[in-house]
Amino acid sequence: MIEAPKGLEGVIVADTHVGDVRGQEGFFHYRQYSAVELACRRSFEDVWHLVIEGRLPDASEAAGFAGEVRLLRTLPDGLGRLLPDVAGLGSPLDVLRTAVSLLGAELGWRPAYDCSPSELRAQAVLVGAVTPTILAATHRLRCGLDPIAPRRDLAHAANYLFMLTGAEADAARVRALEQYLILTIDHGFNSSTFTARVIVSTGADLAAAICGAIGALSGPLHGGAPSRALDALDEIGSRNRAEDWVRDAVERGERVPGFGHRVYKTDDPRSVFLRDVARRLGGPLADLATSVEDTVVRVLAEVKPGRDLYTNVEFYAGVVMDACGIPRSMFTPTFAAARTVGWGAHVMEQAADNRLIRPAARYVGAPPPEPVPAA
Amino acid sequence: MIEAPKGLEGVIVADTHVGDVRGQEGFFHYRQYSAVELACRRSFEDVWHLVIEGRLPDASEAAGFAGEVRLLRTLPDGLGRLLPDVAGLGSPLDVLRTAVSLLGAELGWRPAYDCSPSELRAQAVLVGAVTPTILAATHRLRCGLDPIAPRRDLAHAANYLFMLTGAEADAARVRALEQYLILTIDHGFNSSTFTARVIVSTGADLAAAICGAIGALSGPLHGGAPSRALDALDEIGSRNRAEDWVRDAVERGERVPGFGHRVYKTDDPRSVFLRDVARRLGGPLADLATSVEDTVVRVLAEVKPGRDLYTNVEFYAGVVMDACGIPRSMFTPTFAAARTVGWGAHVMEQAADNRLIRPAARYVGAPPPEPVPAA
Repeated sequence: MIEAPKGLEGVIVADTHVGDVRGQEGFFHYRQYSAVELACRRSFEDVWHLVIEGRLPDASEAAGFAGEVRLLRTLPDGLGRLLPDVAGLGSPLDVLRTAVSLLGAELGWRPAYDCSPSELRAQAVLVGAVTPTILAATHRLRCGLDPIAPRRDLAHAANYLFMLTGAEADAARVRALEQYLILTIDHGFNSSTFTARVIVSTGADLAAAICGAIGALSGPLHGGAPSRALDALDEIGSRNRAEDWVRDAVERGERVPGFGHRVYKTDDPRSVFLRDVARRLGGPLADLATSVEDTVVRVLAEVKPGRDLYTNVEFYAGVVMDACGIPRSMFTPTFAAARTVGWGAHVMEQAADNRLIRPAARYVGAPPPEPVPAA
Repeated sequence: MIEAPKGLEGVIVADTHVGDVRGQEGFFHYRQYSAVELACRRSFEDVWHLVIEGRLPDASEAAGFAGEVRLLRTLPDGLGRLLPDVAGLGSPLDVLRTAVSLLGAELGWRPAYDCSPSELRAQAVLVGAVTPTILAATHRLRCGLDPIAPRRDLAHAANYLFMLTGAEADAARVRALEQYLILTIDHGFNSSTFTARVIVSTGADLAAAICGAIGALSGPLHGGAPSRALDALDEIGSRNRAEDWVRDAVERGERVPGFGHRVYKTDDPRSVFLRDVARRLGGPLADLATSVEDTVVRVLAEVKPGRDLYTNVEFYAGVVMDACGIPRSMFTPTFAAARTVGWGAHVMEQAADNRLIRPAARYVGAPPPEPVPAA
């Protein structure tokens, strides 16, 4: 028996070709490419192809893949019929969890154990394509509005914004959201990705794995709650209140949303990139965020020395999504929409070279067997 | 960085007070009591109390707990209204996964991170109480029958059988099912239990954790598919065909359902106990199972020397459930109904002393950063 550190921190549990995070260097990559560089130079669909197929598409493959995923955005009949009844139950992320469960069930997805690689790939691509439709419809239904059907003439990010609002967003906002989505497809062996792999290691179907991963992503400790960072910015309100606000929060023993990461002990490269995106889009929130950031980092370095607390992805993600017109309640679900693509790739990888993930625990209770007293 | 064996086999990832499996000894326990002895001497509700509260109830606590859980069996309104539309989508286990997702959402379960221990306990008890109702209603709806409301005058197992069939089962069958359910509440750090703990380690809500665990349990490699073992018995048909059937299966490279376990390298104590239960209930299937078992074990020892393949829980579980009147399609869901109790205890334990479970992976793909070619 090997005893692992609590939380499995620093324990290598799998080999992966999908990507990695180099926390000390502030660098992360999908396959052999820098994720940030991909966000600069390629479309969401191209990166999706990279993550799922293992290589960037050539021009013909890119057109083929973009065409393929556009056809997969429509909700299956049963899910489309049920969504109005489900959309109000719980948070939007709860709804997504339920909807993905329904999706796999309605489409009769077989256990991954019984699926060919191409069957599993088709499911992974479909869940990535249909998730924005689920989310946009969920948001509109929760607002008392009719869902808007996906448009085949729009690319992934543009179509998502269209389905949310019913209007075509301008190119700068579409590209900003697209870059955010590219940057959040995958991020090493985080808890939700690991959850998806544990579930599929039992041979379970892809919907079961994604459903579990969505659940893990909903946890406040997972790190993906850009709305909290924005709430904090609202509370701070203006640049000159930042210092007092941070000192108060630290004094009350609270975490400062948007700062600190388990893996990055330097700037989070997603944050650095999204800061630039936010500045490009401009607006009072972007101004406030950039001016507050310096203060917060300085104060945290002073009151939490040695902790290396820098802005993490959620700090500027909220600013960017807000500027793109994504409602705050949909920040984490939008994050999840990008992450479904990464989860899909991990599920495929796990299934292709699988061994049941079944660790052990150390029993530390009263020693058995103690005789069972009669009732 | 520590490198863990594939599948985390033999890696201790947590301390637990819930229970343990001693594979070499053919022994497993809940808290300090032998699970088999508990199944002999106590009610399901008493063992449920033990697992959740950490101790067996005294007479007054037992009455109080039994009374408490009886009140929690009714489906919440929204779930009750939606179940007819959901019950036909996918397998019964898919439906349970969806229903638990809806349950947590409808009841507004907060992240475990924000829950007091008593709040989390209440959720864990509720999901254990309401799962049989979900399953029985699901089964009846799939058969075109109206669901039957739970009865407060019946104990857990008796009420489940009543809700499935609309008739009160005889005491022998009720007790047999109750013993099966007691034996399957928990079983070490299996994949679904681990899944629940990983998900709740992010601070996510209990429904997210159970939902993920149900998904993991649905995997063919998890081990819980008593219907497969019964299908195999059907195929074998008679005692004297057993030897040829096993030899053929092994020759085709197939696993023999109901035999072999990752942890037990001797008789599975659940199988031993359930064999006695099956004999007690009698019937042609029990006769066939017991006569086939010896042949299969003997042939497997011969053709797979050193593998120590004995009957596992699923072999006699199917026989017992069949004799109790549980339809074959509901075997694994019934297993899940018992396991929700164990998952609940593990979720509570994880939340009470939590650290985010976030392992690492080794990137083995092409080395980054390779410049990203333009589209």
